[in-house]
Amino acid sequence: MNPKRSFASDNNAGIHPTLLEAIARANVGHTKAYGDDPWTERAVAKFREHLGSHVNVHFVFNGTGANVLGLSALLRPYQAILCAESAHINVDECGAPEKITGGSKLVDIPTPDGKLTPALVEPRIRGLGDQHHVQPRVISISQTTEQGTVYTPEEIRALADLAHRHGMYLHMDGARISNAAAALNVPLRAITTDCGVDILSFGGTKIGLMIGEAVVVFDPKLATDFKFLRKQGMQLASKMRFVAAQFEALLTDDLWLKNARHANDMAALLAREVSSIPKVRVTQTTQANAVFAALPAELIPRMQEHAFFYVWDERTSEVRLMTSFDTTEEDVRGFAHRLRELVGG
Amino acid sequence: MNPKRSFASDNNAGIHPTLLEAIARANVGHTKAYGDDPWTERAVAKFREHLGSHVNVHFVFNGTGANVLGLSALLRPYQAILCAESAHINVDECGAPEKITGGSKLVDIPTPDGKLTPALVEPRIRGLGDQHHVQPRVISISQTTEQGTVYTPEEIRALADLAHRHGMYLHMDGARISNAAAALNVPLRAITTDCGVDILSFGGTKIGLMIGEAVVVFDPKLATDFKFLRKQGMQLASKMRFVAAQFEALLTDDLWLKNARHANDMAALLAREVSSIPKVRVTQTTQANAVFAALPAELIPRMQEHAFFYVWDERTSEVRLMTSFDTTEEDVRGFAHRLRELVGG
Amino acid sequence: MNPKRSFASDNNAGIHPTLLEAIARANVGHTKAYGDDPWTERAVAKFREHLGSHVNVHFVFNGTGANVLGLSALLRPYQAILCAESAHINVDECGAPEKITGGSKLVDIPTPDGKLTPALVEPRIRGLGDQHHVQPRVISISQTTEQGTVYTPEEIRALADLAHRHGMYLHMDGARISNAAAALNVPLRAITTDCGVDILSFGGTKIGLMIGEAVVVFDPKLATDFKFLRKQGMQLASKMRFVAAQFEALLTDDLWLKNARHANDMAALLAREVSSIPKVRVTQTTQANAVFAALPAELIPRMQEHAFFYVWDERTSEVRLMTSFDTTEEDVRGFAHRLRELVGG
Amino acid sequence: MNPKRSFASDNNAGIHPTLLEAIARANVGHTKAYGDDPWTERAVAKFREHLGSHVNVHFVFNGTGANVLGLSALLRPYQAILCAESAHINVDECGAPEKITGGSKLVDIPTPDGKLTPALVEPRIRGLGDQHHVQPRVISISQTTEQGTVYTPEEIRALADLAHRHGMYLHMDGARISNAAAALNVPLRAITTDCGVDILSFGGTKIGLMIGEAVVVFDPKLATDFKFLRKQGMQLASKMRFVAAQFEALLTDDLWLKNARHANDMAALLAREVSSIPKVRVTQTTQANAVFAALPAELIPRMQEHAFFYVWDERTSEVRLMTSFDTTEEDVRGFAHRLRELVGG
Repeated sequence: MNPKRSFASDNNAGIHPTLLEAIARANVGHTKAYGDDPWTERAVAKFREHLGSHVNVHFVFNGTGANVLGLSALLRPYQAILCAESAHINVDECGAPEKITGGSKLVDIPTPDGKLTPALVEPRIRGLGDQHHVQPRVISISQTTEQGTVYTPEEIRALADLAHRHGMYLHMDGARISNAAAALNVPLRAITTDCGVDILSFGGTKIGLMIGEAVVVFDPKLATDFKFLRKQGMQLASKMRFVAAQFEALLTDDLWLKNARHANDMAALLAREVSSIPKVRVTQTTQANAVFAALPAELIPRMQEHAFFYVWDERTSEVRLMTSFDTTEEDVRGFAHRLRELVGG
Repeated sequence: MNPKRSFASDNNAGIHPTLLEAIARANVGHTKAYGDDPWTERAVAKFREHLGSHVNVHFVFNGTGANVLGLSALLRPYQAILCAESAHINVDECGAPEKITGGSKLVDIPTPDGKLTPALVEPRIRGLGDQHHVQPRVISISQTTEQGTVYTPEEIRALADLAHRHGMYLHMDGARISNAAAALNVPLRAITTDCGVDILSFGGTKIGLMIGEAVVVFDPKLATDFKFLRKQGMQLASKMRFVAAQFEALLTDDLWLKNARHANDMAALLAREVSSIPKVRVTQTTQANAVFAALPAELIPRMQEHAFFYVWDERTSEVRLMTSFDTTEEDVRGFAHRLRELVGG
Repeated sequence: MNPKRSFASDNNAGIHPTLLEAIARANVGHTKAYGDDPWTERAVAKFREHLGSHVNVHFVFNGTGANVLGLSALLRPYQAILCAESAHINVDECGAPEKITGGSKLVDIPTPDGKLTPALVEPRIRGLGDQHHVQPRVISISQTTEQGTVYTPEEIRALADLAHRHGMYLHMDGARISNAAAALNVPLRAITTDCGVDILSFGGTKIGLMIGEAVVVFDPKLATDFKFLRKQGMQLASKMRFVAAQFEALLTDDLWLKNARHANDMAALLAREVSSIPKVRVTQTTQANAVFAALPAELIPRMQEHAFFYVWDERTSEVRLMTSFDTTEEDVRGFAHRLRELVGG
Repeated sequence: MNPKRSFASDNNAGIHPTLLEAIARANVGHTKAYGDDPWTERAVAKFREHLGSHVNVHFVFNGTGANVLGLSALLRPYQAILCAESAHINVDECGAPEKITGGSKLVDIPTPDGKLTPALVEPRIRGLGDQHHVQPRVISISQTTEQGTVYTPEEIRALADLAHRHGMYLHMDGARISNAAAALNVPLRAITTDCGVDILSFGGTKIGLMIGEAVVVFDPKLATDFKFLRKQGMQLASKMRFVAAQFEALLTDDLWLKNARHANDMAALLAREVSSIPKVRVTQTTQANAVFAALPAELIPRMQEHAFFYVWDERTSEVRLMTSFDTTEEDVRGFAHRLRELVGG
């Protein structure tokens, strides 16, 4: 057993106590399976409070499921997804998007900071109507990005407008959307509903759930057959109430925001602390709950012993340090202290 | 909220208290995600105690995931699955097997009681080597069946032998394998490892887990790439420890057996009770935790108000009554009492 | 080399001389590839003369391609195809429909003569809206059927009406549609356009082409993305003019009808001849260009030496004898003569 | 009708007269369908003469079919294909590889001239064994490349060795392999069998066939189930003899080589002619039958009227001029003359 806290990923944390308690409170008697239950109804209502009364919400098991099924609702197999080269769907899902959409191509676009822009995307919207070429259909962005950066509402709106002008959709991988909203200090709808996002993966696990993500569909037309996509995509939970109960609690009394702010604050502190250490360089603007930094290569294994984290780029000794809802100031200061010690040594 | 217990399905029950406690106990500190953690290691060791030290075990989210990924490990898309017409994979998974295997055909075979036999299967092993026809590759059986019946070890062995003689595999959908072993009063390995089963979906949710099933692979060669199938199939949990911790607890001190015996006993009691009621006919042998019975059609809605259950066959007013680990004698007697009352009325 | 004519299948024949000549005449200079050429334009115009000015026509390579791509235009993977158990798409395409549609299930329905009826189909339109079940979306029929029988216009209309009442489509596998129209003595549109068929595979190879089938789409909305389905489905010919030129010739001066009538006449003659032979029983009504007959089992190999054909059902010694545009009266009489000789012997 | 010859593509040409004659000669009597015929047997024997007695050969309809089915034989859906960014499979097949392989990702690599090298490929062979990442399985190269360049035997061997060292395969898209062998002045086996190629798409259409490509499998183990992949992939021709007869003729008396040499010679002449014209710059080394040249943008439409061709890169006014087996010296000189005239004008 390993009770320590690491900086490996926010999904290395456990369950937030309030959410575990929500599971326990839902554990009474029998209820209908597969989402036809009062917990699910209430959790969906919570989502509508935050994102608008017109949204449709579907709970799934994990982030890959949320992303890929959301994309599947938008695509036929000859249509393509435009995304950042570093996007989770492009790099970290073992080809699930290609497989589960039935063969849609991901057209990946290099970016300096994980963020797409109209200037980067527009040249890739080409070959429209030409039967030899895959047809661009979806722009997919991550909020926060895999580099820990955050899209502003204006940046999202610009991409949504670009998509819609071309009869395309905007998909958002919001595995860390709570961290993004907290970083921007805006409500959740300000970076989704109000910006023209069409389908959203709303992250649960990384903000404290045991298991559970939500697919939010903003255009009711797109939601008509989502339940079939979810079932055929093997993402329909029988004991749905336990996923729903966690989301209900997360969206109550701003727990999502408290968790996100805390994680972001810890990352900001960590960035400040390590940036003052000689031979250490913070490589991306720390906006949410990830710090990217180049460390002296020879110190990485010893620091990983202190508290585990992943190397992002072997060639440049860039590492990723993630904070979560349960990271403490002591964790952060202890890490910085140990690093300073080793650098100095 | 609906704290009553129904006879709708064993997945309408909640989490067994011991398993919820296991989740809570695992909620300490950080651990590596995706299964590289001590809980997963211990849970796998438990499976090996029960099923053999050579088995490979992979946790997934739900039964559809377990079945379909297990089948995917055995098949190429031009190969076919032979199964009972009533099989869950044929009827209740919205085409997930066809989709996720990449197009494998299900050849479904009518049965009187949900059980395949060599006599039923052998005539469907045809067209071997003929490029125009799908190639039979897997025999898939459900233990218990969707009709609540149970295969004996000898019956399983006969199907495994048939499969292996033709270079095929035997897959078992064991969503209720605990109930089957309890009904037969044999250890789990007696109806799996010892009978030549090649891949098994080991049911968790219906025996008391919140979320979680296991794919058990008996031939190490078949397991070499299963982790990729699971990830690309969107069934890899990040906070895996919480699924694993439940399985560890389930397989400790025979909790699986206690839960299964209890549910089976309640079904036996229910069958006895209702079979003595006039105009009610039990339609399948009650072997595990399901009772199939034909009720007077006009009473069904009123009994569903008393305690919900599903109609299995509209034409014959056959209903399915399922018991679970938390069904009480009072639930059973109350149901029988109410039914007798209404029939008498 | 084997220059004899068999009764194995109409696709064992070669190229009709007029169609080979059409290929040769099209072999002049360069033209744009992939269908942007005058031959394709003229061939499409011919189809519109026969089937209506609103139809869209797409040439493909083979019957499997025509059927599967036509179905793909109508379906999402969680939707199902209702078809006869004996349908070519169910039996003879090695699972191509399941694979290429991305996982759609074929729900196959036993029939006495290869023909679906509303009474057979309607009970299978069930589970609508239930996320656990595949959603019936297409009724697919073969004209002529695999048993050589022919749907009347009224029978087709009844199935189209049934489909449309349920928001479903009617697909026709018309690999031998010319033989069907000839048998009914009606124009092609009387069994397609006028009956509410939504998508048609129009057979070319079996009526004399070297290579080539056509997918005819009756509802322009369904045709909007067909070109992408065809290209991604690997069925777009670069030297399209040579497929188109054959179809242009086939639909000119009623060549399709002459070829079909001749084949049908030869089958009628063959049915008459063999039905008078002792111990031989014609087992299906001979309506088009196939004769099904039960022969004395021991004579089958010797008759196959005389002129090859396929055994349809080993258990009943039923064989299928197909005629084609080039079958001669001598072929037929010689076959009957030899059979009579052997039976008598 | 448009009897002129263009420089648009070698697939804008018609059928080479010898190959059309081969079709006509094969048009005698009946023969078994689907490849069980003497023409197919002889054509396969011809391939074995050229490429080795151990190769397996499967005829298909088109280049997309050949490439995608060849790749399918090597891959599971979680495995990836490494290819040049400009590869036909990446750009011009409307996502067919992703769809038909069941979801395999194409990892595309920028190249200056369409040619992969070990130095370009090796850094992309990463994440091996990591379940989050697609697993590199195939290196796919085009011979000739889409830029008209040609791999030497040594270059191919180096890529095959790299692939095999990593347990991967080398796939060759040989849509224009005849032109490549002619350019290198080596036998076909020198750039395939002898270099360790595992699966080859052998181009037919672009060297003069009406319809037809061949998949050549060098390792017999890889060929065991190819016939099922072909049938389920909708690429099995019923009247196979007419495809086979063309290949038999192509591989007889070095017709493939004569056609290829002629096309290459015409391209060399064209490159010489246009490179001497002011304001015209040849942009790729002309090694086979394609000339890439930057023309004054404003002249392109007028030259396309003279003889059609495609613009390769709008931004740089780079065009692609392809020659074919039937391009004449007059065609080339006429084009150059007209271009010189317009430039001078």
